[in-house]
Amino acid sequence: MNTFGTKFRLTTFGESHGNAIGGVLDGVPAGLKIDLDFIQKELNKRKPGGKFATSRKESDKIEILSGVFEGLSTGMPIGLIIYNENQKSKDYENVKNIFRPGHADFTYFHKFGIRDYRGGGRSSARESAIRVAGGAIAQLLLNELSIEICSGIYSVGKVNHNTNLEDDFNKLDFKFVENSEIFSLYPNLENEFKNEILKAKKSHDSIGGSVGTIIKNLPIGLGEVLYEKFDAKISEAMMGINAVKAVEIGSGVFASEKKGSQNNDFINKNGFLSNNSGGVLGGLTSGQDVIIKTHFKPTPSIFLKEKTIDIFGNEKICELKGRHDPCVAVRGSVVATAMARLVVADMLILNLSSKLDNIKKIYNL
Amino acid sequence: MNTFGTKFRLTTFGESHGNAIGGVLDGVPAGLKIDLDFIQKELNKRKPGGKFATSRKESDKIEILSGVFEGLSTGMPIGLIIYNENQKSKDYENVKNIFRPGHADFTYFHKFGIRDYRGGGRSSARESAIRVAGGAIAQLLLNELSIEICSGIYSVGKVNHNTNLEDDFNKLDFKFVENSEIFSLYPNLENEFKNEILKAKKSHDSIGGSVGTIIKNLPIGLGEVLYEKFDAKISEAMMGINAVKAVEIGSGVFASEKKGSQNNDFINKNGFLSNNSGGVLGGLTSGQDVIIKTHFKPTPSIFLKEKTIDIFGNEKICELKGRHDPCVAVRGSVVATAMARLVVADMLILNLSSKLDNIKKIYNL
Amino acid sequence: MNTFGTKFRLTTFGESHGNAIGGVLDGVPAGLKIDLDFIQKELNKRKPGGKFATSRKESDKIEILSGVFEGLSTGMPIGLIIYNENQKSKDYENVKNIFRPGHADFTYFHKFGIRDYRGGGRSSARESAIRVAGGAIAQLLLNELSIEICSGIYSVGKVNHNTNLEDDFNKLDFKFVENSEIFSLYPNLENEFKNEILKAKKSHDSIGGSVGTIIKNLPIGLGEVLYEKFDAKISEAMMGINAVKAVEIGSGVFASEKKGSQNNDFINKNGFLSNNSGGVLGGLTSGQDVIIKTHFKPTPSIFLKEKTIDIFGNEKICELKGRHDPCVAVRGSVVATAMARLVVADMLILNLSSKLDNIKKIYNL
Amino acid sequence: MNTFGTKFRLTTFGESHGNAIGGVLDGVPAGLKIDLDFIQKELNKRKPGGKFATSRKESDKIEILSGVFEGLSTGMPIGLIIYNENQKSKDYENVKNIFRPGHADFTYFHKFGIRDYRGGGRSSARESAIRVAGGAIAQLLLNELSIEICSGIYSVGKVNHNTNLEDDFNKLDFKFVENSEIFSLYPNLENEFKNEILKAKKSHDSIGGSVGTIIKNLPIGLGEVLYEKFDAKISEAMMGINAVKAVEIGSGVFASEKKGSQNNDFINKNGFLSNNSGGVLGGLTSGQDVIIKTHFKPTPSIFLKEKTIDIFGNEKICELKGRHDPCVAVRGSVVATAMARLVVADMLILNLSSKLDNIKKIYNL
Repeated sequence: MNTFGTKFRLTTFGESHGNAIGGVLDGVPAGLKIDLDFIQKELNKRKPGGKFATSRKESDKIEILSGVFEGLSTGMPIGLIIYNENQKSKDYENVKNIFRPGHADFTYFHKFGIRDYRGGGRSSARESAIRVAGGAIAQLLLNELSIEICSGIYSVGKVNHNTNLEDDFNKLDFKFVENSEIFSLYPNLENEFKNEILKAKKSHDSIGGSVGTIIKNLPIGLGEVLYEKFDAKISEAMMGINAVKAVEIGSGVFASEKKGSQNNDFINKNGFLSNNSGGVLGGLTSGQDVIIKTHFKPTPSIFLKEKTIDIFGNEKICELKGRHDPCVAVRGSVVATAMARLVVADMLILNLSSKLDNIKKIYNL
Repeated sequence: MNTFGTKFRLTTFGESHGNAIGGVLDGVPAGLKIDLDFIQKELNKRKPGGKFATSRKESDKIEILSGVFEGLSTGMPIGLIIYNENQKSKDYENVKNIFRPGHADFTYFHKFGIRDYRGGGRSSARESAIRVAGGAIAQLLLNELSIEICSGIYSVGKVNHNTNLEDDFNKLDFKFVENSEIFSLYPNLENEFKNEILKAKKSHDSIGGSVGTIIKNLPIGLGEVLYEKFDAKISEAMMGINAVKAVEIGSGVFASEKKGSQNNDFINKNGFLSNNSGGVLGGLTSGQDVIIKTHFKPTPSIFLKEKTIDIFGNEKICELKGRHDPCVAVRGSVVATAMARLVVADMLILNLSSKLDNIKKIYNL
Repeated sequence: MNTFGTKFRLTTFGESHGNAIGGVLDGVPAGLKIDLDFIQKELNKRKPGGKFATSRKESDKIEILSGVFEGLSTGMPIGLIIYNENQKSKDYENVKNIFRPGHADFTYFHKFGIRDYRGGGRSSARESAIRVAGGAIAQLLLNELSIEICSGIYSVGKVNHNTNLEDDFNKLDFKFVENSEIFSLYPNLENEFKNEILKAKKSHDSIGGSVGTIIKNLPIGLGEVLYEKFDAKISEAMMGINAVKAVEIGSGVFASEKKGSQNNDFINKNGFLSNNSGGVLGGLTSGQDVIIKTHFKPTPSIFLKEKTIDIFGNEKICELKGRHDPCVAVRGSVVATAMARLVVADMLILNLSSKLDNIKKIYNL
Repeated sequence: MNTFGTKFRLTTFGESHGNAIGGVLDGVPAGLKIDLDFIQKELNKRKPGGKFATSRKESDKIEILSGVFEGLSTGMPIGLIIYNENQKSKDYENVKNIFRPGHADFTYFHKFGIRDYRGGGRSSARESAIRVAGGAIAQLLLNELSIEICSGIYSVGKVNHNTNLEDDFNKLDFKFVENSEIFSLYPNLENEFKNEILKAKKSHDSIGGSVGTIIKNLPIGLGEVLYEKFDAKISEAMMGINAVKAVEIGSGVFASEKKGSQNNDFINKNGFLSNNSGGVLGGLTSGQDVIIKTHFKPTPSIFLKEKTIDIFGNEKICELKGRHDPCVAVRGSVVATAMARLVVADMLILNLSSKLDNIKKIYNL
């Protein structure tokens, strides 16, 4: 329910306007150096603020409550907490009984019979801060295996939509992406992306965007057969991020318009000659770079009048206040990286028992 | 690993060229009429044969070994078995040590250190017959709630690619789809789809295709927060089908190029005014029709020469024999329906405890 | 790993001498009145202090961080936290590198390669405070079904050992037990129990004890077939409490010395004529009172000299300081109640889907 | 529900009087030699027949349907099936509507609303044959680590009841136990045990018994913290065996009457000086022999008149026909070994990720 992962797993709690959000990261192997600065730096990427995100002010300071002793993970569950600072529940008074179009209000109310109107409650993207913290700890493990993960914006609105990401991902400069204010994958498109976002913001509207995630240096064979395949778990992880409406692996949607002779990746003794598969064959990683495309809808919170109903069924006009991201894909890309990290860490661990030889190796036989 | 679902769950076993494939369906509520004819009819849709599928001859006769007494489910696990009949492992002698491009051979070999070369072994789509059987039993449960699920082909290769499915799904004739030899969603495109497939087949090649799945009459609120969302579980299920490379919900990829004011579904007292969300809001079903698009790559098994290597690293030319589907999306659409059925049944059951009122109702309080 | 339960589940974190202990309770149905006073009152029962427990001073004040809105559960995960106040890690300096006999030091060190010597770290019974908090919330749900659970001491050392609990549980006065300083099940034995404990304490030693748990008013049929049986889950829960070495259901160990004609519970139209089964038949609750016996070893922390080794393999004499319970069964009985509550709440929810009729009832068919 | 284990897991199906029983064993590492003769030999131990078991005639021939290729496990799920041969459902016609005292009839009927009267249906001990098969495959893995597990009878009725098993387990001769017709742990008590069983049988009654299980040569540190402890999982496994009413680890019930100074196991440089802990400290294995005591109630099926009611609430006299074990502990001991094997195999695999060093070792860092 509120747990992600099997052996390396994150359980989270907390609402947008409650006292705190937090979680428990379980299954971190003992002996891992826990670099708090790195974790906080990752959180800062997702932090609200700036021209391209909500103006809610949160320091998003992470506290680690357990599972670390003298700088090393102990194998015990890691308790994580971030206290909320800038709840402005009053902003929501006027939509207290109203279903905001494009939001979870309608479905949560009907499922639970309860209306927590304050900023989306649990369904708010605020919870994703804990995913980012958990993902950062996962990355500390991945660093030991030199696995790198990078996510960024490759299209905003119609700008650069329908790109075949795997054709040019080799040119990607991870450092540039990390430092880009909007995590643009491409230096030459960054300004165009920014303009598109600001244009939407100025018109009190929002805009959709697409995120590319690249995973480099994975071992061959991650993923379980047949129902916890690597790509299936990635899809679940990405589609589970707020506002995501589509997920593609490798050539993705394009694969469905091609012939087998075009889409198969041939092999020679130096390796694969193309990467239409996006690094996943039969649900398992092939050792090639994993390429994921994640499509975010425009932020449903806009400042235009919208037709809706209230919880009693009366027709109403929804007029939002509050503070919202004009393009949720931007900060969503940070969450995409976090989810990929969590999936990879879990799969690395699940894979340990694939072969008898591995077990013999651990137990010194 | 080989289990799908939480409370309504299917565990499968079996390889393409072993003695049998089978599974255990656990969590079927007691008292459900088990209609064997319906289950077999569903299996027959996926069965090999005909111009548009592999020519492997299998009767795919399902046997139920347990969990049913005097025609009713007993609440006990339902054992399912289909004996394989038409294994031709000899077809694979020439690729015994070769990694077939686009196949799982390479990754399975590296993960497990074992090469079961016979027809893909476990990674073969043959296993999906058990998914179809499990899905059919799930549908018997869904019938009690009048939930309908239909999947079919909406594009083959470039024909009708990039369609916005939710614009016209209301015109869909489920009966037509079910009886179409290739499960075409559209009567007017059926022949064009067929020609595209046969063209690929004649050129010893294969072709990709896309499948639309529509779920009608779902209750509001199915899905769990925040890591077993309805759309996340659907994505996992669909991406876990062999050859699938992309999954979209509702407006899907298109959502990422739109503005919020275009993509939000407004509401009046009669309900939602559009369905860009594809029936899922905040990860929970909204009561609107659920719309899923699943993109299949072309069958990797083609009869053209392909560059590859063998398990010793030597460069080889792969020349396949055997019997293969020219467009795996066709039979894949039957599996898509099965997976959707399994997800919905599981979510219906998980949802039972969402409210205290539900629990009181069951325990007569 | 650090999660207990399937659909009503508690995940905990925290060490004895860290900043805080806490957890996430997931799966609480929405609409339940959350009575904080009751939860705190339950925690106070387990709280250190008094003649019969460790003198560590902790207020054990529980904070609820999420999942409750305007006094009602929202269906969202409930974040729980208790900040530690009275860590005296210095008490442990002298045993920093020493394996304390009867403790988890030896096994944790070898499993994780890390030595968190401060008061047992994660393996300390301190974590059980969160179990008690989670169990208290479970009880709020059980109250809706009038299910009562009571645990107490029925033997200390050799006093009243080998009692057949089911013979006299009907005479039990739950109010007396709750108010007894040592949670004695029997008024007439309370002083003898106390003396036995104080005698052990005075001799710098500790003493074992046994706990009886009675669950009244359960519905028939709780428990899953065949691997999550009610009694199996209870056993797992009880054996998982620190210091527990044996668990019995109903006639328990005595059952193994009886004949079938003695042990079978006959039935007439008013119900069962005896309760040797302890309320569980075929792993499912029978509607009779459930009777559980849980046996606690003496607290391993004693203040006598003990032979041991250090982490380098050198022979050492262990001389403990610190603050310890002379009879861990006393506070253990509070944890036993908590675990029983968690199991019952989970089983109530899992049982909702046992019959098609239940599903029809919820979805109004 | 019908699945046991996390990463090494067995899912079973099948009823006593259905066509077949079977299961899926998932998570077997690839490359393990699958010795069918050994598996069948283990099944033969549990097989009905002889003076001390039911006279139902079953060859219990196991078939492996998948997951094995050229004699080695492939990492794929292993499908297991045993066809039933000697169903005599007619024996049950006279109890068709009657609740047999001590049986699951009453609880299953109320939980599921269905009465499968044929020989206990799913609740019959017949299902345990698949546990034995799964356990035998687990043992093949344990053999690679030289882990030995032996179970046998140490008390029947009042004969040798209340023994402190850990005092004399070192004298146990595993070969003798295996070859004993009733799996007696002690040569000198075997005849007394047999007489006790035959005496019960002659008087149309049944008798309880207790089983000791010894696990030798376990690595230190198996078990998870804090809710999948080794002893907790063992308890769940053992209590989940039909007819078991109590489980003890190490000194077990006796621990609760002792002082800390008596019960703590001191350590010197050669290891532990006693084994009151039964090889488990803090829920993790200590490297000492694990000692488990499992108490079986007398078989509820007896051939004496018993008071009961039918499904309509009418009072009836139950007079059983059919074929039943006079002392279910005898064959139960074979199942106890199987369950211990399954737990150990699962724990071995779960333990692989306890330390960062292990992960580095596998991924060659």
